Amino acid sequence: MTPLTGAARASALATVPDWSEVDGRDAIQRTFQFEDFATAFAFMTRVAFAAEAANHHPEWFNVYNRVEVTLATHDAGGLTDKDIALATAMDGMAAALA
Amino acid sequence: MTPLTGAARASALATVPDWSEVDGRDAIQRTFQFEDFATAFAFMTRVAFAAEAANHHPEWFNVYNRVEVTLATHDAGGLTDKDIALATAMDGMAAALA
Amino acid sequence: MTPLTGAARASALATVPDWSEVDGRDAIQRTFQFEDFATAFAFMTRVAFAAEAANHHPEWFNVYNRVEVTLATHDAGGLTDKDIALATAMDGMAAALA
Amino acid sequence: MTPLTGAARASALATVPDWSEVDGRDAIQRTFQFEDFATAFAFMTRVAFAAEAANHHPEWFNVYNRVEVTLATHDAGGLTDKDIALATAMDGMAAALA
Repeated sequence: MTPLTGAARASALATVPDWSEVDGRDAIQRTFQFEDFATAFAFMTRVAFAAEAANHHPEWFNVYNRVEVTLATHDAGGLTDKDIALATAMDGMAAALA
Repeated sequence: MTPLTGAARASALATVPDWSEVDGRDAIQRTFQFEDFATAFAFMTRVAFAAEAANHHPEWFNVYNRVEVTLATHDAGGLTDKDIALATAMDGMAAALA
Repeated sequence: MTPLTGAARASALATVPDWSEVDGRDAIQRTFQFEDFATAFAFMTRVAFAAEAANHHPEWFNVYNRVEVTLATHDAGGLTDKDIALATAMDGMAAALA
Repeated sequence: MTPLTGAARASALATVPDWSEVDGRDAIQRTFQFEDFATAFAFMTRVAFAAEAANHHPEWFNVYNRVEVTLATHDAGGLTDKDIALATAMDGMAAALA
């Protein structure tokens, strides 16, 4: 698996418009906000199962109802299709809990 | 807290039409079905927080993508508003994950 | 994968002495009891990840601090090494939370 | 609830020796390391229930098997007994999963 570049990267990023590129690192990030801590943690649980199934884990920070996520593929040294797939899944899971 | 009876019971039950009364016991039940185990367990996690917050816990059975729930208020010896509230919350949470 | 029989079955069952055979079905069961609901659910979460990783899921019932588990391998029509492995893992996880 | 100071603070901190004070902020932090992601997330789930019960939530960052926690009481503007209590609970929960 190699990092996304060029046109493939641009079109992949276009599918996850709520995510932004991280300064100084080949990664993407998004902050999710939920009604309360319990809803935020339910989101994290659902993501945790998807992450474990894909053996691809997020870097994430949580405080109360906020979850800040950074995605990158460590083995590939940058952003790959695996990150886009997990970002897409997280978007859907967050929308379901909004 | 006393068990729901008469007209109050009938109108409470009307708000949770997907739940049915349990034979031989003053309780209600519903079976939820999800896409897979991970989704079923994410549902259970979200319910678990709500149950803990209300200090009112379900009786539930899970295998793979199926969750069978029975609700009753043990202290009151029957079905109460607490059960209707938890049933309503579970309906919403399940709908969000469907 | 075929159901455990004979001496292999006997020695496998001897490794999980807290589990008992289910009447009228080729399966094993154990009831776990925890301090409270939160601890019971933390146990269930840890088991859920192990079950998902092995693609082998328990049949389980929970109410408050009690978790009743039945293990059998549906595809094999009975008790297999997969069940013994999950039973062993659950024993360790429950002991850690006791 | 007021921030811990003086001798009360010193003796409170002495009960959680694995936690260190945060530079430039009245808070404490500890990094936990587990066997794998599933174990780290089981830890987080157990903590989540305790946090919700106390209505006192951690700031935490997770990637794979590592959980970095910062505790402070936002309403009090600093470190209080609530943080020491949650730190103590987290220490016990982590030890159980080690």
